[in-house]
Amino acid sequence: VVLVSPRNPLNIGAAARAMANFGFERLAVVAPFAPNWREARSAIGAPDQLLNAAEHPTLGEAVAACTLVVGTGSLTYRKPEQRVVQLPVLAPLVRQQIEQGGRVALVFGPEKHGLTREDLSFCHILVEIPTDPRQPSMNLGQAVAVCLYELAAHAFRAEEASCAPASLAEDPCTEVGRHVAASGDLELLATVIDKAMVAVDYSPATMRDKNSHDMRLLLRRLGLGRLDTRRILGLFRRILWRLEH
Amino acid sequence: VVLVSPRNPLNIGAAARAMANFGFERLAVVAPFAPNWREARSAIGAPDQLLNAAEHPTLGEAVAACTLVVGTGSLTYRKPEQRVVQLPVLAPLVRQQIEQGGRVALVFGPEKHGLTREDLSFCHILVEIPTDPRQPSMNLGQAVAVCLYELAAHAFRAEEASCAPASLAEDPCTEVGRHVAASGDLELLATVIDKAMVAVDYSPATMRDKNSHDMRLLLRRLGLGRLDTRRILGLFRRILWRLEH
Repeated sequence: VVLVSPRNPLNIGAAARAMANFGFERLAVVAPFAPNWREARSAIGAPDQLLNAAEHPTLGEAVAACTLVVGTGSLTYRKPEQRVVQLPVLAPLVRQQIEQGGRVALVFGPEKHGLTREDLSFCHILVEIPTDPRQPSMNLGQAVAVCLYELAAHAFRAEEASCAPASLAEDPCTEVGRHVAASGDLELLATVIDKAMVAVDYSPATMRDKNSHDMRLLLRRLGLGRLDTRRILGLFRRILWRLEH
Repeated sequence: VVLVSPRNPLNIGAAARAMANFGFERLAVVAPFAPNWREARSAIGAPDQLLNAAEHPTLGEAVAACTLVVGTGSLTYRKPEQRVVQLPVLAPLVRQQIEQGGRVALVFGPEKHGLTREDLSFCHILVEIPTDPRQPSMNLGQAVAVCLYELAAHAFRAEEASCAPASLAEDPCTEVGRHVAASGDLELLATVIDKAMVAVDYSPATMRDKNSHDMRLLLRRLGLGRLDTRRILGLFRRILWRLEH
């Protein structure tokens, strides 16, 4: 669970409590507002989650080792740039990643306005909680609880449904034994491609930011494997080297 | 939603907010501790739920008109006297009642100790949230959110079950505006990338054929869209042009 710029320490504590309730251990806090957030009294029963929580200056660093980064939030005022998955069907994706040895981050934005467009560019997919369209804005601690409940309940539900025909067919696009690239590797690749784009004057000045942004989204959308990423990185490094010499 | 003897008005407000999030309207509060509970500031987006909430002196009166009363809480320290249903499979029971014209109450106990044995005697069934046995005690507002989410998500999930399973690979047919690249486009891209690889001396002579081959396989494996393909093609053409001039 990654909380980006949470303002109220009580909400950090509430998130930690929900993690303890549903058996999740690794909390990361990005650029928290209150320096004393580890003392949140609302983290009842979750001392370890707070004590061991990592603090990062940026979201990119927080999710560097993750192979699937899931952004949360209301999409009412925002046109999504990634695939949107409804929370009730998220769990199989998460499970698949973990079974393949991947690591998954569930990212929550600040209380007031949620994740920014830049935050979202680190996300492979967005998850939407099926709320009433008249009141989609959830309390942060409640949103964390609902998401973690859904993941924890999935196993239970899957067992219950095991009499029904198995519908969780294997994803044909996922190669056996293929390892998904971690977010940090993708970010490194994006940086090198970005340098190449600058070196060859690919973008007019006014389009540079947009093109960088779009390229980062594209890399995440492709579901690149670790070897693929390394191969492409090698090619672009070679291109850069050639351009500079 | 029935809250029995809630101590903290913030929790009443949080429950009201979750109700608004998931489209539930009728809140009842039994013997609340704070007389000013209707002013809870945490009821963001849920003024109607608080304003129209009923206050009852006893649980018996609060659920008098209900045909199915569902008690919630941890059963760790208590031997259940009713049928216990796990939350992930509660929704069909609730739905059935409502379709038969019944009314359902979801009853939550006070923060500290939950529903008493006497409270539970008003319940037809007990629902258990599948929490980690080491930390089963949930925050009241989070417990309400999780239960209401489950009921709201049930309809969604039932619909999804009749469709294909979710998978991380995008279904290219469902994404608006995105069309899968034709094989010819991919081949054109492969050719241009190949030229770039030659231009920067990416491959040792003995590896050239293998690397070209692998790159073409990679491009197909990624399931590139037509626009993605055009974007990457543009970048590599620009790189080639720069290398040659």
